Amino acid sequence: MGHRLLGQRYAGFDQINPPRLTPTVGNPGQALDHKRFADATMRENFVAERDILHRLAPGIPVTTNFMTALSQCDSVDYWAWGREVDLVTNDHYLITDGRRTHVNLAMAADLTRSVASGAPWLLLEHSTSGVNWQPHNPAKAPGQMARNSLAHVARGSEGAMFFQWRQSRRGAEKFHSSMLPHGGTDTRVWREVVELGSSVDSLRSIRGTRTRADVAVLWDWQSWWAQNLQWRPSEDHDPRERADAFYEALYDRHLTVDFAHPEADLSAYPLVVVPALYLMTEAAGNNLEEYVENGGTLVVSYFSGIVDEHDAVHDGPYPGALRDVLGLTVEEFSPLLKDDRIRVTGPDGSELTGDVWSEFVVPRGAETVWTYADGLTAGHPAVTRHRFGEGSAWYVSTRLTAQGLDALLGRAADDARIAPRADLPRDVEVVCRTGESGTFLFAVNHTALDTKVPLDAHGTELLTGERAAGQVSVPAGAVRVVRLDG
Amino acid sequence: MGHRLLGQRYAGFDQINPPRLTPTVGNPGQALDHKRFADATMRENFVAERDILHRLAPGIPVTTNFMTALSQCDSVDYWAWGREVDLVTNDHYLITDGRRTHVNLAMAADLTRSVASGAPWLLLEHSTSGVNWQPHNPAKAPGQMARNSLAHVARGSEGAMFFQWRQSRRGAEKFHSSMLPHGGTDTRVWREVVELGSSVDSLRSIRGTRTRADVAVLWDWQSWWAQNLQWRPSEDHDPRERADAFYEALYDRHLTVDFAHPEADLSAYPLVVVPALYLMTEAAGNNLEEYVENGGTLVVSYFSGIVDEHDAVHDGPYPGALRDVLGLTVEEFSPLLKDDRIRVTGPDGSELTGDVWSEFVVPRGAETVWTYADGLTAGHPAVTRHRFGEGSAWYVSTRLTAQGLDALLGRAADDARIAPRADLPRDVEVVCRTGESGTFLFAVNHTALDTKVPLDAHGTELLTGERAAGQVSVPAGAVRVVRLDG
Amino acid sequence: MGHRLLGQRYAGFDQINPPRLTPTVGNPGQALDHKRFADATMRENFVAERDILHRLAPGIPVTTNFMTALSQCDSVDYWAWGREVDLVTNDHYLITDGRRTHVNLAMAADLTRSVASGAPWLLLEHSTSGVNWQPHNPAKAPGQMARNSLAHVARGSEGAMFFQWRQSRRGAEKFHSSMLPHGGTDTRVWREVVELGSSVDSLRSIRGTRTRADVAVLWDWQSWWAQNLQWRPSEDHDPRERADAFYEALYDRHLTVDFAHPEADLSAYPLVVVPALYLMTEAAGNNLEEYVENGGTLVVSYFSGIVDEHDAVHDGPYPGALRDVLGLTVEEFSPLLKDDRIRVTGPDGSELTGDVWSEFVVPRGAETVWTYADGLTAGHPAVTRHRFGEGSAWYVSTRLTAQGLDALLGRAADDARIAPRADLPRDVEVVCRTGESGTFLFAVNHTALDTKVPLDAHGTELLTGERAAGQVSVPAGAVRVVRLDG
Repeated sequence: MGHRLLGQRYAGFDQINPPRLTPTVGNPGQALDHKRFADATMRENFVAERDILHRLAPGIPVTTNFMTALSQCDSVDYWAWGREVDLVTNDHYLITDGRRTHVNLAMAADLTRSVASGAPWLLLEHSTSGVNWQPHNPAKAPGQMARNSLAHVARGSEGAMFFQWRQSRRGAEKFHSSMLPHGGTDTRVWREVVELGSSVDSLRSIRGTRTRADVAVLWDWQSWWAQNLQWRPSEDHDPRERADAFYEALYDRHLTVDFAHPEADLSAYPLVVVPALYLMTEAAGNNLEEYVENGGTLVVSYFSGIVDEHDAVHDGPYPGALRDVLGLTVEEFSPLLKDDRIRVTGPDGSELTGDVWSEFVVPRGAETVWTYADGLTAGHPAVTRHRFGEGSAWYVSTRLTAQGLDALLGRAADDARIAPRADLPRDVEVVCRTGESGTFLFAVNHTALDTKVPLDAHGTELLTGERAAGQVSVPAGAVRVVRLDG
Repeated sequence: MGHRLLGQRYAGFDQINPPRLTPTVGNPGQALDHKRFADATMRENFVAERDILHRLAPGIPVTTNFMTALSQCDSVDYWAWGREVDLVTNDHYLITDGRRTHVNLAMAADLTRSVASGAPWLLLEHSTSGVNWQPHNPAKAPGQMARNSLAHVARGSEGAMFFQWRQSRRGAEKFHSSMLPHGGTDTRVWREVVELGSSVDSLRSIRGTRTRADVAVLWDWQSWWAQNLQWRPSEDHDPRERADAFYEALYDRHLTVDFAHPEADLSAYPLVVVPALYLMTEAAGNNLEEYVENGGTLVVSYFSGIVDEHDAVHDGPYPGALRDVLGLTVEEFSPLLKDDRIRVTGPDGSELTGDVWSEFVVPRGAETVWTYADGLTAGHPAVTRHRFGEGSAWYVSTRLTAQGLDALLGRAADDARIAPRADLPRDVEVVCRTGESGTFLFAVNHTALDTKVPLDAHGTELLTGERAAGQVSVPAGAVRVVRLDG
Repeated sequence: MGHRLLGQRYAGFDQINPPRLTPTVGNPGQALDHKRFADATMRENFVAERDILHRLAPGIPVTTNFMTALSQCDSVDYWAWGREVDLVTNDHYLITDGRRTHVNLAMAADLTRSVASGAPWLLLEHSTSGVNWQPHNPAKAPGQMARNSLAHVARGSEGAMFFQWRQSRRGAEKFHSSMLPHGGTDTRVWREVVELGSSVDSLRSIRGTRTRADVAVLWDWQSWWAQNLQWRPSEDHDPRERADAFYEALYDRHLTVDFAHPEADLSAYPLVVVPALYLMTEAAGNNLEEYVENGGTLVVSYFSGIVDEHDAVHDGPYPGALRDVLGLTVEEFSPLLKDDRIRVTGPDGSELTGDVWSEFVVPRGAETVWTYADGLTAGHPAVTRHRFGEGSAWYVSTRLTAQGLDALLGRAADDARIAPRADLPRDVEVVCRTGESGTFLFAVNHTALDTKVPLDAHGTELLTGERAAGQVSVPAGAVRVVRLDG
């Protein structure tokens, strides 16, 4: 665990304490192991309770509500928990901090479905309107509750349940919205709840179908645990922020995302994105190598593949788990100071902007696509591409803005032969569920303008009962669900 | 106390602990009760000590120094304490955080007088110049100490005492100003102290008179306690800020304020303002109803009248204690995100600005006066007016700027038939004390320009001994006290 | 200790506890004594260990690594520690917070040398490139490591040692740079380490020589301890910031600084600067008086000479320890509010800017050189000069910007007959070491432009072996060391 460096050794198990306040930095290896221990202990407890319930109530599925979207709930490894519940369920509340709430919702839903290995899951809690535990708790706009509900269904949920039925007059949650507000039944919220309930029946045939994903994003709670230990190169590098940013860039390209464990089989995906996976086992590195060798397209963001499962730097130059597939080594990280920006120029004259991070990248097989134009790393590669076997592997060594990520993903999508969806406006979300009962296209219009979504086939819109041919009209703020013929 | 919501019950008194650190939010009802318990316990202790002193030293008044202006001293209910002391005394120090110190001083003095039920009180501590415990401790400007002293007297104090006599060379308060500074008697501070002392005699006839107020502002420490518990709709809504802002708007209209308990008799006031009284008993609500019914004008700011004395939401739509008198219901609160602004337009085309808060107001008798022009609540009422009995009740559902409050209060003052004081410049403060010994007009000039204050009658200026007829000259930074003839 | 002010007394030593959390402010005198106690206890422990080592290993010098540049290591009095070690050694890491790292390096090296009473010392730790414990840890630029190393040598170090030899794969310091990085020997860092090592031999003759200083800056850890206790006039006044700012202003005038204890013999220096020495003994005050009386030039910044060694205000007007030599008293401090600025005008029409602090200064012999143009102190002196004996004493009562400090120091340097170095560009550092083996001029070019440094004599550049006459060329980013003939 790294204790031998400064002459510290453990002579026995009884010398091992939980992490404590230390006069200087603690041992990161021990802290990581303690996180694993805490997660495993809680999970063991859940399994024991589940087994009792199974014995006493055979045939009744047992679950516990996950909270995949909240980084404060990152202390459990949902990959492992997903294997223990009979049905994956999730609580989701809009994070009202100014970011696009529907993108976070889509990400949470995709992550929950991925934890369920793609099987249908259930939204166990969301809210009819505002909550009461965030710094600022705005209400939901008219129609937003139904739109939120169906957006979860589009990404695999078999329903949309609410906390809470009737707003409590007392206690800590009395300002949390509910199906029946303090204001009673003569309220917009109540009317919208009733309206949503009455539309559910028309969607019955969707049950059991599965959401179709276009690309995979690697995800690993254990890597977040390791990454967020003390004494990292920059306090401004937040791996969760990178995961969010890459997800948002993929969302804005109208691509549906599966999240995948780094050691999972990736062969089904034309494109795999690794936002910032600091901890990556040798097996995961080999998995990605094999994936690219066999024709996959890989995009890796900086500070990935650095340490193994013991938080030990992989032997040799960074990024140990990935340097062969990326065709490069990183001599040094060079984080930027607060608010510093760095320019990055492409061969076509395009200019992107990075911040937070830069690196001294030495290509060892990779070609340089974008180059640092200023800063300490001026003249060094910022974005590289490596032809490897039948595929290609991209690497980006700085924190690009949304515009930069889009440019990078556009190039990678070309490699992966994923055609752009120029026919869809921004914030019009299109997702498909498919299964024995048919193929269902969800079109969710998050904008204030009516729009039309093109269809590859004829079909029937389930909420209105109207036929759709070639396209379906989706009013501002509305959702349409087309069951495609065939 | 709201414990039944999540299945928690108390089986006996011995299960009740003081509020503790909890893994998630605590029980607000219990926390509120604990605040009452702590206040009552301290008060009991004071009363016990007072009674001993009364027995040992009959006829000597007993007091303890209040700190009405400091929100960190809000843990006691001064309404209750005011009834226990023989003489209400207050400590006041200028809050040097960039806000107008003389407005805070006036507010503290008005509040202290109100705690004394309008009877004369005593300024037990203030400072000759800077203090040493605020983040930044500027000196007082020349003349400011005398101006501060007499501003307290104008609002009911029978004197102006200082902490500390001689600046201590050692300990924690050695940089706190004093009557005799480290610099000795050859200092401006000492000379100003001597000068102030020599003027006191001329003001002797004021003793025992009472300050005349124009309007009432409702005030309740118990409501602050409840309001500031956890999990409120927005962390940016600060009820004390609203109280300060409404007070400042009234001050700038040259109105003298009495603070009143929500259940007090309000019939003497043409205008009553409720800045943000989250907790309001049913009795208080009835009190306000009766007040308006009988011809009063009421102005209520958002998030008032929401819960009862147990922090339980009043049954039915918000604001339970006030919806009849206001003629409206509030379907939902919708706090704004950090730094968001919202526009509000009036029928006359006037445009005001709000932030922090907005609401979905449904008029049920009230007329809409200003309307939200953008945001989630666009098109809904922002400011309403309800004719009720002989009076009218105004409601504002967003946080208006100073300019907006002035517009609102201007309209309400018209309803209350309070004429504007267009003849007084900003920051020229005029307050009257009256009693058996006569009527005394205090004119305090906080500006850097000499000014003249109109008088309704002839009189004698006490500090200069000069006669005043029709008006009194008040030099920049000076105070004049006119004893009106008759 | 100031306890008698509020009726607190100690009846015995067993009533004295270490400083604890208090409901309000603690006793500053006791807190200061506790800091002395903690420092003395640690020092006693070191001395005990040192004596054991001396006994067991006679003739082997014993040291412990100081960290003079880090304010978090200010809890020890290095003046006292410097007397206990056989060799003064220092750890130095660039503070990468956006300030000029080479100025902080020079300051740390000058301070270390001063702690060693001017004798040669040793840089025991620095880094080849970035560290891992600051908020942002950029790499060093090419050539920066060698430039840093020789900049320490210029200011008295006998070498430049690194933490760490080989980058550790595990534990808390795995992202701290090293001589042999994770990337191995095919890295820029390794190549620069090898190159630096090969140049060392040419500098052998410098050993044992001493750095020549131009001016003295007073420095006292005990004063920092006292200054940083609770309840000071402004939380924005940071004495360490003033020390840094004055050092930087002297650095930019190309003056080499010795730091001196306030009671040290100062007669060797034409100019002595007192940045912000809140605590100053009467002996120190007398020392400065004698220094000026005998012809020295003194520059004193505000909030100096205020308290004695017990944190008691010197009797009489501020600044008690210095009012005679400065020829003035300070009636009141008047700190500025956050972000407030104040203008200061000179007799020549020059305008400077201050913030954080202002004072009501009353000249009592001193002449006013710059005057406050606005704010509470408008019209009062901002900068004064006092002819005293054969010398002169300057006083500045506000926090001047870098430009203001330069103007002030320019005037004081004239008094001290220190000629400006107009022939040296900014950030070209020139320092001399001299001794039995000769005189060595170090020229350190921190800029991106090649430059030439004038020489008073002919000499030989040691790193290139070239002869230099009249001047030496110093390429961008490089260091040149000229052994002057004679």
